[in-house]
Amino acid sequence: MALRACLRGRRGLTGVLSQLSSCNSHGRVSPVLIAQQRNNSTSQKIQVDFDQSTSVAVMRMQNPPVNSLSLEFLTEICINVEKLEMDKSCRGLIITSDRPKVFSAGLDILEMYGKTPERCAEFWKAVQEMWLKLYSSNMATIAAINGSSPAGGCLMSLTCDYRIMADNPRYTIGLNETLLGIVAPFWFKDTMVNTVGNRTTELALQLGLLYSPAEALKVGLVDQLVPEDQVLTTAMKTMSKWLAIPDHARQITKSMMRKPTIDRLMSNRESDIKNFVGFITKGSVQKSLGMYLEMLKKRKA
Amino acid sequence: MALRACLRGRRGLTGVLSQLSSCNSHGRVSPVLIAQQRNNSTSQKIQVDFDQSTSVAVMRMQNPPVNSLSLEFLTEICINVEKLEMDKSCRGLIITSDRPKVFSAGLDILEMYGKTPERCAEFWKAVQEMWLKLYSSNMATIAAINGSSPAGGCLMSLTCDYRIMADNPRYTIGLNETLLGIVAPFWFKDTMVNTVGNRTTELALQLGLLYSPAEALKVGLVDQLVPEDQVLTTAMKTMSKWLAIPDHARQITKSMMRKPTIDRLMSNRESDIKNFVGFITKGSVQKSLGMYLEMLKKRKA
Amino acid sequence: MALRACLRGRRGLTGVLSQLSSCNSHGRVSPVLIAQQRNNSTSQKIQVDFDQSTSVAVMRMQNPPVNSLSLEFLTEICINVEKLEMDKSCRGLIITSDRPKVFSAGLDILEMYGKTPERCAEFWKAVQEMWLKLYSSNMATIAAINGSSPAGGCLMSLTCDYRIMADNPRYTIGLNETLLGIVAPFWFKDTMVNTVGNRTTELALQLGLLYSPAEALKVGLVDQLVPEDQVLTTAMKTMSKWLAIPDHARQITKSMMRKPTIDRLMSNRESDIKNFVGFITKGSVQKSLGMYLEMLKKRKA
Repeated sequence: MALRACLRGRRGLTGVLSQLSSCNSHGRVSPVLIAQQRNNSTSQKIQVDFDQSTSVAVMRMQNPPVNSLSLEFLTEICINVEKLEMDKSCRGLIITSDRPKVFSAGLDILEMYGKTPERCAEFWKAVQEMWLKLYSSNMATIAAINGSSPAGGCLMSLTCDYRIMADNPRYTIGLNETLLGIVAPFWFKDTMVNTVGNRTTELALQLGLLYSPAEALKVGLVDQLVPEDQVLTTAMKTMSKWLAIPDHARQITKSMMRKPTIDRLMSNRESDIKNFVGFITKGSVQKSLGMYLEMLKKRKA
Repeated sequence: MALRACLRGRRGLTGVLSQLSSCNSHGRVSPVLIAQQRNNSTSQKIQVDFDQSTSVAVMRMQNPPVNSLSLEFLTEICINVEKLEMDKSCRGLIITSDRPKVFSAGLDILEMYGKTPERCAEFWKAVQEMWLKLYSSNMATIAAINGSSPAGGCLMSLTCDYRIMADNPRYTIGLNETLLGIVAPFWFKDTMVNTVGNRTTELALQLGLLYSPAEALKVGLVDQLVPEDQVLTTAMKTMSKWLAIPDHARQITKSMMRKPTIDRLMSNRESDIKNFVGFITKGSVQKSLGMYLEMLKKRKA
Repeated sequence: MALRACLRGRRGLTGVLSQLSSCNSHGRVSPVLIAQQRNNSTSQKIQVDFDQSTSVAVMRMQNPPVNSLSLEFLTEICINVEKLEMDKSCRGLIITSDRPKVFSAGLDILEMYGKTPERCAEFWKAVQEMWLKLYSSNMATIAAINGSSPAGGCLMSLTCDYRIMADNPRYTIGLNETLLGIVAPFWFKDTMVNTVGNRTTELALQLGLLYSPAEALKVGLVDQLVPEDQVLTTAMKTMSKWLAIPDHARQITKSMMRKPTIDRLMSNRESDIKNFVGFITKGSVQKSLGMYLEMLKKRKA
C-alpha cells in the first residue's frame, strides 16, 4: 500500500531522481529538467517504443557491452518505467535487450568494487527502486529474454508477469550470486520463491545455479521458449492476451499476489541497504570481487 | 481454533441459519423448524445419501440449470454439510453434481447484479460460510467433478481433500473471475495457492484461466482424471483409502495444514464483506456484470 | 538468530548433553567427560569418518536392527554433529546407514510406549535437538539414503541440503505417522512443505504416504536416484560441487532460506513438547501404539 501510495503521489519524474540521489544530496533535491512525455523516447542506454494503437511499450536495453546494471543505467530504467506507468494509455510493457547474446549481465560489479559506503548505498537503493517499480507495476509486463540473464538480469526477468526466452542452449539464466562469493538478498529470494517455489530456490541460490533455457522452463523460471528470432513477436502476441483482461481486475489481482513481498522490502529498505553496504565493503568480499574482475579481464584478453 | 470452537459450539442447525440471516434480522433469530436427522435427506436443491455401512455420504447438487450458487442454494449446502459434520457416524463426504455437463457454474451472478448492499453482504457471508464449513470439515472430502467447474465451482472443489474429474475435454475448471471484470478474494487465492503453488495461481488468477481436465491435472488443480461414467465409483473407492486412516490423526493433520488459511478469513470476515460489497456495487463493475448477463442471454437465444 | 547464537555460544560438548538432560536434572548439570576431537570417532552406534583432504565427514548410523531413533541414539547423533560443526576444517557432512536395507526406521516407538511424561518430554527434546542441529548446520549436508526411510528417517533426510536415494523399488520414504495413529508435528510439516510444497505435503501427511524411490523423485522428496552400490560415491562427487561454492555465501544463503522455519520451533519448543507429551500419553494413542508393536512382533515371528 505504501508503495502504491508512493507511486501515485509522485507528480513528475523528480520522484525517482530525488529518491535515488537523496543519500548524497542530504535532502536538497536539485531541480530536474523533465522532457515532455513522448510516444518514443530514447536515452543513451534505453530505447522505448510505445505504440498507442496496441497500448504496448517495448523497452530495449542498450548499455554496451552487456547491459550491466550500473547506477546510471538503473536510474534510466526507473525513469522510463515510471514515465510509462503514469501514462494511462500504456497498458503493457515488454522488456528486451538490444545487445547481442545477452539480456542483462546483472548488477555492475564495478559499482560494488572499491567504492565508498555512501556510493554503495546509493547504488543499492537504485537496485531496490528498479525492483519495486517493476514488481509492482500496474502494467502487464513481459520479459522477452533474448540472451543470457544471470543475477540481476534474472531478477529483472522475474519481476515481469510472463517470461519468454530464446531457445538457445548457449544462454543461461539464474541467480548465481554465491558463485561470486556474494549473496542474493531476501527480496531476490522472495521473488524467486514466488516463481519456482521454496526447494528449487534453496538449491539454486546455495549452488548459484545457472539454468539452460530447457532447464529454466522445466523448473518454471521461464514460461515459454521460442526460436531466437521469434522472442519479441511472441511477446507481442502474448501481450494481447494479457490486455484482453479488464485492467482493474487484473491489477487488483496482481497487487493481491505481490503486495506482501513488496511490503516486506518497503518496511526494511534501510536495514537492507545497511546490510548490503556492510557486507559488500568487507575486505574478504572485496577480495573475491577483485579476483572475479581479474578473471573477466583475462577472459577478454 | 476460533472456527472449530464455533463449529463445536453449535447445538443444532440454527447456527448457520441464524448466522446467515443475521445481517437482515438485526439480531432477532426466527425459530427454525429442524427436521430430525435422517440417513437420506432431500431438499429441493440437494440430495444427500448417507450409507451407514460405509460411513460415507454423497451430496448431489441439483439446482437447475447449472448449480449456480445462489444465497438459497449456499444456505442449503451449509445446512446439509453441518448436519453431516455433527453426525459422528459420517466420516467421509463426496460432493458431486446431478446436473448434466456441469459440476457448478459458480456464484450466481444474479445475486450480485442490481442488489442492495445489504443483500450483497448477506450473499457474501453465505459464500464465506460455505468455504469455511467445507475447508475445515473434519470429514474426509472428495470432489467428484463430473462437469465444468468455473469460479465458485472450482473453489468448492478446492476445499475438498481430493479431486477426481471427468476426463472430458469439453469441461473446464478454474478461478476465472477476472474475465468477468471481478476479482477472486484473498481466501479464494489462498486456497488455490495451497493447492497449486504461488506462480500457477498468479498466472491463473490474472488471466482468468480455465483449464481443460488434462491441463488441470498437469498443474495440480485436480488429482485424478477418469472416464466420465467412473467419476463417482472412483470417488467411492478412493474414499475407502482415506477412511483407512485413523480419524483423529487425519483430522489433526488436516487442521494443522489448513488452520492458518482459515484463521485468516475468520479474523477478516467483516472487512472482506465490506470490501466485496464496496467493489461489487460500483457502477463500473455493475456495468460489466450487466454486459456479461446480456451475453449469456444472447447465447441461450 | 537465536539458534545460531545458541550454537556459537557453546564452548564444548556439554551444550547438547546438558540441554538434553535438563528436564530431568532440574538445573543441575552433571560434569561430562569430553573426548578430544579426533578425525575419526566411533561410538557404539555412530561411525564418523572425517577426511581432512576433502573436508568431508561421513556419518554412518549403526544402531541395530534398523537405526531406530532412541533417546540414546539421538543424543549420540547430536554430539557427533555438534563436534563436526565446531571443527572449522569440516565443511561437508554425508549421512548414511551401515545397516542393510534401511536408512533409519524413524523414532523408536518403544520410547513413546508406556513411558512417563518426563521421559517422553526428554525424548521429544532430543528429537527437536537433532532436527535443529541438522536443519541449521553450517556444513553442506547430503543424505545418502541407502534403504527405507519412513517417519523420523525421512525427517532426517529432509534436513539435508541434498538427497540421493538408492533406486531399489523395495525401499520407501515418507512421513507416514498418521498410519500409526500419531501426528507429524508442525516442524516436520514445515520441513516437508519447504521441500515438496503445500499440496503434496497435505496429501502425504493426511494419508501417511510412503513413496517408492521413483515416486519420491517425482514429487521432489529426493533429488536423485542411483543404483544402490553408487549411493555413497555419488554423494561424495556431489559434495565436491557444494564445496566449490564459497562457504560464507552458501551459509548465509542457507540460513536465509531456513531461519524462519527454525525460529518457529525455537520460539515454540516448550509448547511443542507439552503438546507431544499430552498427545502421546493419551490412552487411545497408547493403545494404537501397543497394537502396532504387537503387529511388529507377529511379523518378526
